[in-house]
Amino acid sequence: MDHIKENNWKNCDTEKLIHGGDIYSAKEQLGKRKNPPMILDFSANINPFGLPDGVKQAIRNSVDSFDVYPDPLCRELISRLSKHEGVPSEWILCGNGAADLIYRTVYGVKPRKAMVLAPTFAEYTEALSAASCQVVHYELYEKDGFQVGEGLLDSLDQGLDMLFICNPNNPTGQLVTKEFLLKLVRRCKTLDILLFVDECFNEFLDEPQDYTTKEFLKAFDNLIILKAFTKIYAMAGIRLGHCISSNTVLLKKIREAGQPWSVSAPAQIAGIYGMEERDYLTKTKKLIREERAYLIPSLKETGITVIASNANYIFIKDSRSTAKPLHELLFEKGILIRNCDNYYGLGPGYYRICIRKHEENMKLIEALREMKTDLTELKR
Amino acid sequence: MDHIKENNWKNCDTEKLIHGGDIYSAKEQLGKRKNPPMILDFSANINPFGLPDGVKQAIRNSVDSFDVYPDPLCRELISRLSKHEGVPSEWILCGNGAADLIYRTVYGVKPRKAMVLAPTFAEYTEALSAASCQVVHYELYEKDGFQVGEGLLDSLDQGLDMLFICNPNNPTGQLVTKEFLLKLVRRCKTLDILLFVDECFNEFLDEPQDYTTKEFLKAFDNLIILKAFTKIYAMAGIRLGHCISSNTVLLKKIREAGQPWSVSAPAQIAGIYGMEERDYLTKTKKLIREERAYLIPSLKETGITVIASNANYIFIKDSRSTAKPLHELLFEKGILIRNCDNYYGLGPGYYRICIRKHEENMKLIEALREMKTDLTELKR
Repeated sequence: MDHIKENNWKNCDTEKLIHGGDIYSAKEQLGKRKNPPMILDFSANINPFGLPDGVKQAIRNSVDSFDVYPDPLCRELISRLSKHEGVPSEWILCGNGAADLIYRTVYGVKPRKAMVLAPTFAEYTEALSAASCQVVHYELYEKDGFQVGEGLLDSLDQGLDMLFICNPNNPTGQLVTKEFLLKLVRRCKTLDILLFVDECFNEFLDEPQDYTTKEFLKAFDNLIILKAFTKIYAMAGIRLGHCISSNTVLLKKIREAGQPWSVSAPAQIAGIYGMEERDYLTKTKKLIREERAYLIPSLKETGITVIASNANYIFIKDSRSTAKPLHELLFEKGILIRNCDNYYGLGPGYYRICIRKHEENMKLIEALREMKTDLTELKR
Repeated sequence: MDHIKENNWKNCDTEKLIHGGDIYSAKEQLGKRKNPPMILDFSANINPFGLPDGVKQAIRNSVDSFDVYPDPLCRELISRLSKHEGVPSEWILCGNGAADLIYRTVYGVKPRKAMVLAPTFAEYTEALSAASCQVVHYELYEKDGFQVGEGLLDSLDQGLDMLFICNPNNPTGQLVTKEFLLKLVRRCKTLDILLFVDECFNEFLDEPQDYTTKEFLKAFDNLIILKAFTKIYAMAGIRLGHCISSNTVLLKKIREAGQPWSVSAPAQIAGIYGMEERDYLTKTKKLIREERAYLIPSLKETGITVIASNANYIFIKDSRSTAKPLHELLFEKGILIRNCDNYYGLGPGYYRICIRKHEENMKLIEALREMKTDLTELKR
């Protein structure tokens, strides 16, 4: 099967929001009803513990200083991040959330042709298109469990300026190994391709160090890693992400592709205090592990196919014949899941579910069981 | 004199920060001393009253909700802004500070050639250069008090895609009248030039309505206005700006040139509550008026030339012969002013001073008087 496809995918109107976490539209729609249900959001991959208490307190204590411009160089934040990540400060650039850095990188690098895997996070293609870059997709197939294979290495050529890979991949939850990534960055180096590795969900993994490309940074100046505070520290509203590369000329280009004050004062404070929260991380990983173990068999019991889960979300397929698509049925009950039918390379029936706290996960499973009963009754 | 100049200005390294409000570098430098002076920042044009109390409280009360993604469409904020500005919601786009919207506009519009007045805010040229746009400068001269004249109309031609104008101009403090702006937008319309009017300091004016292009929006789809919450509501650390245009196709392009979640949750909250603060605005304008009346003659007394002041800052020239430049002498005392020697079209001796509270302004004048004495003594 030929994995390579030209990008002919026109995203839907931005007015129709394409991402998870859109509780605002849900509130608008459900709010019109007589007895609107409580909204339970499984559509955004955010740490279910919410902002760490230390971060909340730090923000409350800093409000008086939000009148002045934030430090454009994020000096204190980057100095701490440098220790946290174990890389020199000069290798780090912070942004207004990871998504900001995707656009900034593309505007700074100005690639003419780039390859994006499919399905994956939509913003790589959105950013590349905004920068008038030609996008080719390397399609992953369900028959392979959406796993990346060696074929990717062969598909690269000198016509490409950039390659985007997301590990673990969003929304499929699949991983590529460090061994494969080493081959990939080597091949990219030979072909003069900048490899952009999105590791935004790395810290949710049981063994994060086994899947990061961080140790390749020193040897490869064609590598840039994207990371986010947004998900692991539940700071989606605050917006903070960073990228790491040993190529400081590249980082300078990326910085100069946008405004000096992109990282707000609340974001800098939140990042500084977030990194102190070691217990919060331990607690998070324990919860995700336990709840994944609860959710996967429970989902399967309802007849849903579980494709993969390595981070804090589960990628599923619903092939059951139902009156309405799964996300619409759940929406009626105030439960949001991420409908993945608008991902390039996917279609109806694919969904992404965030792992939340046990009580909330139970509510999801309960809702699915009720539906199963409905379906069974329908068939009788 | 020929006003038109090709842009041959290479900005200094981003590491050497080019903007006002860099209290972080000042703290680093002064902090090394035995008895570091208190820092008093006149270099950033921020409302001296700091964040309004209602905004501070609203942020503290909302911290628990900062874990979820902000509304990408800023629905509540824009709905209120629409009433506040007296324009339809569809005409408004919010961004991560006004500077974010300058870059986003340039990336969305993709101009090939643009004109920027000089001296003016550096980010227009920075953004245009980042987007590989050719920049020509229309130079303003000291002999004209840096006033824009009719010559600007004649200098426009069909080769231009965009024209940037800042009113009141930063850093010169000069205004262009609404009558002139109407001629300008008409001329731009004829020549198919997008006119970008930065009105970020409009609300500090005594008569803001006499200098805004807002009423031309309906008739002219080649007009876009930039506004900021940053300065008037002292939210520089929080980052919030918006642009207004009746050209919704243009706004869609600008929105699509960046990430969906550029406006953080704290910024949306701060904007919503900021607009309620009418007394704060009245109090601000009164202070600025009174303190301008105090500062201008006091500055002149010390031998400094005052060029202009219409908003919350004063543009000055220091032609006195001193051992060191004025900003360095003041820096020794912990007082920061904006050295304007790195503006295209300016050179050594030009400074911008923000208007602060009376006690602080008195300290500045005192420091200048002490210096004058020093100079006098030196000459003896």
